[in-house]
Amino acid sequence: MYRYEIKFSNDIPKYLEISKHIKKLIDENNIDDGEKLLSIRKLAKILKVNEVTIVSAYKKLEAEGYAYQKMGSGTYAKRRDTNIKFKKEYSNTLKKISSQNLKSYVDFTGEITSSEFFPVTVFKDVLNEVLDRDGTEAFAYKESLGYEGLRNSISAFFWDNKVSSEDILILSGAQQGIDIVSKSIINVHDNVIVEKPTYGGALTVFKWRRANIFEVDILEDGVDLIQFEAILKKNRIKCFYAMSYFQNPTGATYSFEKKVRILELAEIYDFYIVEDDYLSELIYDNKEYKSFKSLDINDKVIYIKSFSKIFLPGIRLGYMISPQKCKEYIQNSKINTDISTSSLMQRALDLYINKDLWKEHISRLNTAYKDKYNFMLDCIEKYLGDKASYYTPGGGIHFYFKIATDLKINSMELFYRCMNKKVLITPGVLFYKNAKEGNNYFRLSFSEIKKPEIEEGIKIISEILKEK
Amino acid sequence: MYRYEIKFSNDIPKYLEISKHIKKLIDENNIDDGEKLLSIRKLAKILKVNEVTIVSAYKKLEAEGYAYQKMGSGTYAKRRDTNIKFKKEYSNTLKKISSQNLKSYVDFTGEITSSEFFPVTVFKDVLNEVLDRDGTEAFAYKESLGYEGLRNSISAFFWDNKVSSEDILILSGAQQGIDIVSKSIINVHDNVIVEKPTYGGALTVFKWRRANIFEVDILEDGVDLIQFEAILKKNRIKCFYAMSYFQNPTGATYSFEKKVRILELAEIYDFYIVEDDYLSELIYDNKEYKSFKSLDINDKVIYIKSFSKIFLPGIRLGYMISPQKCKEYIQNSKINTDISTSSLMQRALDLYINKDLWKEHISRLNTAYKDKYNFMLDCIEKYLGDKASYYTPGGGIHFYFKIATDLKINSMELFYRCMNKKVLITPGVLFYKNAKEGNNYFRLSFSEIKKPEIEEGIKIISEILKEK
Repeated sequence: MYRYEIKFSNDIPKYLEISKHIKKLIDENNIDDGEKLLSIRKLAKILKVNEVTIVSAYKKLEAEGYAYQKMGSGTYAKRRDTNIKFKKEYSNTLKKISSQNLKSYVDFTGEITSSEFFPVTVFKDVLNEVLDRDGTEAFAYKESLGYEGLRNSISAFFWDNKVSSEDILILSGAQQGIDIVSKSIINVHDNVIVEKPTYGGALTVFKWRRANIFEVDILEDGVDLIQFEAILKKNRIKCFYAMSYFQNPTGATYSFEKKVRILELAEIYDFYIVEDDYLSELIYDNKEYKSFKSLDINDKVIYIKSFSKIFLPGIRLGYMISPQKCKEYIQNSKINTDISTSSLMQRALDLYINKDLWKEHISRLNTAYKDKYNFMLDCIEKYLGDKASYYTPGGGIHFYFKIATDLKINSMELFYRCMNKKVLITPGVLFYKNAKEGNNYFRLSFSEIKKPEIEEGIKIISEILKEK
Repeated sequence: MYRYEIKFSNDIPKYLEISKHIKKLIDENNIDDGEKLLSIRKLAKILKVNEVTIVSAYKKLEAEGYAYQKMGSGTYAKRRDTNIKFKKEYSNTLKKISSQNLKSYVDFTGEITSSEFFPVTVFKDVLNEVLDRDGTEAFAYKESLGYEGLRNSISAFFWDNKVSSEDILILSGAQQGIDIVSKSIINVHDNVIVEKPTYGGALTVFKWRRANIFEVDILEDGVDLIQFEAILKKNRIKCFYAMSYFQNPTGATYSFEKKVRILELAEIYDFYIVEDDYLSELIYDNKEYKSFKSLDINDKVIYIKSFSKIFLPGIRLGYMISPQKCKEYIQNSKINTDISTSSLMQRALDLYINKDLWKEHISRLNTAYKDKYNFMLDCIEKYLGDKASYYTPGGGIHFYFKIATDLKINSMELFYRCMNKKVLITPGVLFYKNAKEGNNYFRLSFSEIKKPEIEEGIKIISEILKEK
């Protein structure tokens, strides 16, 4: 009872003070996650306030995600994990800096290819060609799967016609793909496996869907199969969310053997592989890469691809290939999510691909990024080699670091210290179900920055790591 | 047991025959909705097949929505309501016809304004102006709420600056708005009130969210308040989904008094009003209309507006105004749904509004549609007056009919008979939780068709109704 007591000030409404106080109790572990809060009557008595005041305070806690009601039983505490809080702070910080003057910062947080490579002039011509050619049709929406021309081009250009255009669904990006898959195949309390660490946006969707999330450590050649199989043996798994190449954040890529084994397991244990093809276009090491989808003989892979990351982020286009078994569900889910995706953009991208401009664009990107990648790798070896361990991805746009154990700095602290020196990094806490597990990790992306700043930024990070 | 027995043919796999047979039993009410199916072992014995065959058959039933599993308890039957089946047939029919040659049909099914009014040439110039002005910026996405320019324009142009641009969230259409609201504020088993009949796309989203849906009859001036209050008294309601003007499908519009009362009730019983502003721009009767949002003093209205219906469907743009209390949830929900909406289109629409082209477009539309509306009303009085009852909406793009009780034809039958005579209508069954309740209703939209076809089409419908 004692911990609930408050000395009220006269400046702010009592219900606000009460909710603030209880929030603090929850945040600081003085009220446990899931613990029943005092009844309205009791708390009103203790604090000598009206019951209505307590009702308002509890409502406010609920609205802020600090409490929930159980029908006929009362109000319970809910801990907001630090992940959510930090995530908000992190994105607000980036937003604030970007609205002011990002140019003075060295920005290692990029998740998409840099705008300097956007083929805007060419794309403008393509847009106009489409408008002249199609007129009002360019703004119609008749095809719920997406513009047939684009689906045919995707099939021909990216899949050598081995995937039917009827199995392709146009999306407005990979995030929508993850959301739609969740709605189609995941029910409350269904089990889902993700890589550990993984993309925060996927974690959030699965959490919102109230799935049980199992994390499996990712090694340099894909998830740890021993852990993976142990989970499969004990639990009925609905799907496994994987980034098959240059995983975000680790940069890990699945070996051929691991892919084949996981596909076998998908058949044996009857789960879907949700393959998020993050950046398969940016390959610098001349190895041959194959997607889960291209190796899938049992109709077990749901393949998701975004065009926004590699091409024009504002174009908001991507696509999904659905297995026959859940195709109808997934298509309906798309319709009920946003009916369809911008028609003009689909037509423009289609024409862009057919004029072989896509190929040119990717090849230009590859040359530029390979150069930056090699330079970044040199800088990392030179300045960070003894302070952190990392994979060499061989592709993609980022590196992931484990801070050496003798350095007593956590990644959120590193984030703030770097920010003070005008360097922006992404702390690992954003990529784990339990934020704490990312304390020793951070991610650096070289997508947005030029060589001199790469070196400058890494030097600064190295110095900060040394300080402690 | 007996009903489960099957004479197998040799042509198709046994598990397919079994699942087909059980589907038929469920469809024809020989197995009840929610009834436990025979155990795998038992059924395998009866049918003299392997247990694996039964497992496959049950899996297929599950995949098709005819069965579900309860952990450790077995498989249960699930009736797919005729609504879902007919809905699919209906949309496939329209799709098929539209891919062949819609021109030869009189199409009364339109839900958006006709493509003949699309200002494509003007919009093309606006797009180019944006591309010249903004360059790569036009394809960036930095603002998770949507392009600030557009949010400011919406606030100034549509809300007289009484809504802060910080409370506006850009969407890719109304359907996405409904989906995002559902994910933000509705949990499994939460109670939701909808108008009866209502928009099928909203019903589907609420069903997917596993909400309990209460329907309240809609009268010419809004929902029946006696039914509405009775539900509020007995149930904790999370939100009320309403189309405040020219409701889809009935064309009903809320009276000022009803709006005020419902807003009061929202405060008393603490629920949100999800206002879907379907077509408030098309007003023909010179009355003054006010949205729930504009009358909302207690922060209880979530306002959703689509630009696709009134402007360019393929533009995929709309917006939402969130109450302060759930603003953060809704914004996060948008990010996790598809990150953000096409940036170029937002900039183009912004410029289009600021050049006063929007105003011109709406005024042109109004003139054209008012003329069609009056003509259609005349035809209805002339040919359908004695065969069906209807409201006179005073705006929007459709009429809703109740077939006279002495005519023994249901709306699905009417749909098929009309289709055979090359007339397309929308049967009422699509607008009810329980499809059957729409048996006596149908909707006619005049959005896509010209005067001569309107008269021709209504004559044909009238003759079909007479036949029976």
